[in-house]
Amino acid sequence: VTQISIIGAGRSSWYLIQYLAEQAAVHGWQVLACDFDPEALKQRLANLPSVKTRAVDASNIEELTDIVSESAIVVSMLPPNMHTIVAEICLSQGVHMATASYVSAGMMAFDEKAKAKGLVFLNEMGLDPGIDHLSAMKVIHDIRKHGGVVTSFESHCGGLVYGPDCGDNPWEYKFSWNPRNVVLAAQGGMSVFRKKGATRYLPWHRVFGEAKTIQIPGLGAFDSYANRDSLGYEELYGLQNASTLLRGTLRREGYCKAWNALVQLGLTESTTPLSHAVCIMQDLVASLTGTLKGYPLGKWLVEKDLISESLKNHFDFLDLENCTLEGEDGCTAADLLQDALMVKWSLEDSDRDEVVMYHRIGYTMEDREKEVHCTLSVIGEDAKHTAMAKTVGLPLAMGVELILLGKVQQKGVVVPVTAEWYEPILKGLAARGVFFAETVE
Amino acid sequence: VTQISIIGAGRSSWYLIQYLAEQAAVHGWQVLACDFDPEALKQRLANLPSVKTRAVDASNIEELTDIVSESAIVVSMLPPNMHTIVAEICLSQGVHMATASYVSAGMMAFDEKAKAKGLVFLNEMGLDPGIDHLSAMKVIHDIRKHGGVVTSFESHCGGLVYGPDCGDNPWEYKFSWNPRNVVLAAQGGMSVFRKKGATRYLPWHRVFGEAKTIQIPGLGAFDSYANRDSLGYEELYGLQNASTLLRGTLRREGYCKAWNALVQLGLTESTTPLSHAVCIMQDLVASLTGTLKGYPLGKWLVEKDLISESLKNHFDFLDLENCTLEGEDGCTAADLLQDALMVKWSLEDSDRDEVVMYHRIGYTMEDREKEVHCTLSVIGEDAKHTAMAKTVGLPLAMGVELILLGKVQQKGVVVPVTAEWYEPILKGLAARGVFFAETVE
Repeated sequence: VTQISIIGAGRSSWYLIQYLAEQAAVHGWQVLACDFDPEALKQRLANLPSVKTRAVDASNIEELTDIVSESAIVVSMLPPNMHTIVAEICLSQGVHMATASYVSAGMMAFDEKAKAKGLVFLNEMGLDPGIDHLSAMKVIHDIRKHGGVVTSFESHCGGLVYGPDCGDNPWEYKFSWNPRNVVLAAQGGMSVFRKKGATRYLPWHRVFGEAKTIQIPGLGAFDSYANRDSLGYEELYGLQNASTLLRGTLRREGYCKAWNALVQLGLTESTTPLSHAVCIMQDLVASLTGTLKGYPLGKWLVEKDLISESLKNHFDFLDLENCTLEGEDGCTAADLLQDALMVKWSLEDSDRDEVVMYHRIGYTMEDREKEVHCTLSVIGEDAKHTAMAKTVGLPLAMGVELILLGKVQQKGVVVPVTAEWYEPILKGLAARGVFFAETVE
Repeated sequence: VTQISIIGAGRSSWYLIQYLAEQAAVHGWQVLACDFDPEALKQRLANLPSVKTRAVDASNIEELTDIVSESAIVVSMLPPNMHTIVAEICLSQGVHMATASYVSAGMMAFDEKAKAKGLVFLNEMGLDPGIDHLSAMKVIHDIRKHGGVVTSFESHCGGLVYGPDCGDNPWEYKFSWNPRNVVLAAQGGMSVFRKKGATRYLPWHRVFGEAKTIQIPGLGAFDSYANRDSLGYEELYGLQNASTLLRGTLRREGYCKAWNALVQLGLTESTTPLSHAVCIMQDLVASLTGTLKGYPLGKWLVEKDLISESLKNHFDFLDLENCTLEGEDGCTAADLLQDALMVKWSLEDSDRDEVVMYHRIGYTMEDREKEVHCTLSVIGEDAKHTAMAKTVGLPLAMGVELILLGKVQQKGVVVPVTAEWYEPILKGLAARGVFFAETVE
């Protein structure tokens, strides 16, 4: 029997597994969900009795090989740096593979070998990357089909919390995905984009300070900060004529200026192990500001002109200056901040998250300048059934389905930017309530 | 015959070699100077006919082993990351070793093995680290001998240019040592120190903005920025009772605020390879500021409130916005900045550099609070005979002398913080014009 194996089937894989279970019933496939915690997995999948479960220690090559060898395709939901280990086994066992992660250089190295074996190693098939590729390429191809030329491309995406569920949290933000990535955002090199013909570089410590407020049709004002290397999309999307090329990450208005204060202060520093003297949050705050323990951080930031008075409530809400969370030996400021935010920014069971994506694509057609705005908003059901899990899991599941049904021609290491991917998957997503509103000016 | 071998005998090793040649004549030793460029080496050492020279490719282990095996002691002037390679060979050949570099974890790992073989691996025997250890420990030990307790310790050091030789350069700074270290200053983790009982951490991007202006008796005002981990000196110097523990790096007044603007802008970013579009300095400046090519950087920094009007001349002098220097493929902003500064900040042949060191040590003695100020100023002879080369080379040479004469008891990996080092070497330095002025309040 054709088996689909999901490795690392954690809390956010519900929609992925549910969709695959449905298709498996139709096509006579088998779904195997593997996680390091099989008991919690069984509980989560109690409503899906057709899905087999299995414990996996992802660091154990023999266990991984055992799972891969009985599969037709493997979906890796493991941390991105582990995908190449799975890929190596998939290659040797002649098994397809799919991930929602960016293609790493290590993954790219499998391209020719996978092609030679007729295998598909599908990547970047989640939300961002994923739905961004599918939706943007459909619009771009449509413009070209009608003789247009894309002259500017902006794409913004954010995993947020549905506004009314933010309560008294002035950040209007909670964690709906990996908190680590939120705390380390922008670190590890410069961000680069192009705006009106000019290539702009921003060192990581300027990224949040340079965030822009944008208006998204129908949804209102958001902050958007530059999302790493936007220029890589020139070749991927064929945007050599675009004088603006910008990918941004969305937050609610005010977030970026407030977050910038944490960056400037040093609370996101992730390389220096702290001495024992300051590995309690309130001591760390005092150490970074040079104030007495308990001195209100928001007040200090206003006094130092690092934030405006209107943002003070963000820091009063976090109350880091009185937070007694203690880090482990050798922890960094970023570790401590993450721990503190996980208390303040965790989704309540009934909280609904919101995924927002917005493309703004300028083009010329028949000598006229036009602009198309594509807006996606998906609201989650609750903290266990998030919009984030849905928008990552559904495209990935649909990609797996297409591969198993032999409906795609591409082989090797694949990023879904062609019609054979976006046509069926955008349709499938729309049928489940995930679709873009489009306006042309 | 007892041979002293210097590996990496570059331009700044004149005083080191000269002193060793003198002692070699007295004691019947031989000095061998090795460098990758033996012709330039011979020219530099034309006045020292007793010194043998030899070409060395420091990446060639056989060549290194050949040199080490015929030596009684090896002085490594190679880049710090190569010292452990030399140490490995010295250990296997039973040869002493000396460097002016900080003890790395890799070097520390040789401690027991070197001790077991009765070898001295002397490190941190230059200016800073080096003369700072020698001079500070003498003062600290004197205080303790008289029943005092050190309650605060500040030590500042800088390699500068003699003021009158700075000409129209408003930075009053030129390169008298490794330019790379100047451009990357503070990068790679937080700086940490203690001030009035409070442990202070500063992420690298705040270090220059938080620099303080200090008054050095007899020398005037300087900027001082936190020099990495000052807390490590608590144990090394036995300063558990010091409520202030701060090591600073000195620059002329105004330098740090101006340099901070370059840091904030991103011109010292050292990890991101730049795209071809911006690897010319004037394009990079436009890219980081978002201005048109040639827009005056100083003017922009004033407009953005990143510097005060009085610092604008620093940027007018550098004229980076019109600099057409082009970096190699894959260069970083820091690479380009270094190239540009090497044009503007190179020592003219007749320029004299200046080394300044300043300790400010508070202590209590017989229930009275006192403070001792120790000030060192050494002015170079010219661009080839710098104060920096003198203050690094002389202590290192004197350390070698002590080891060969069997005048020190310590074995293993050694940092010179005991009287057996500082007593003879401070005397020797004073005899050559390198001595501290001391005042007690």
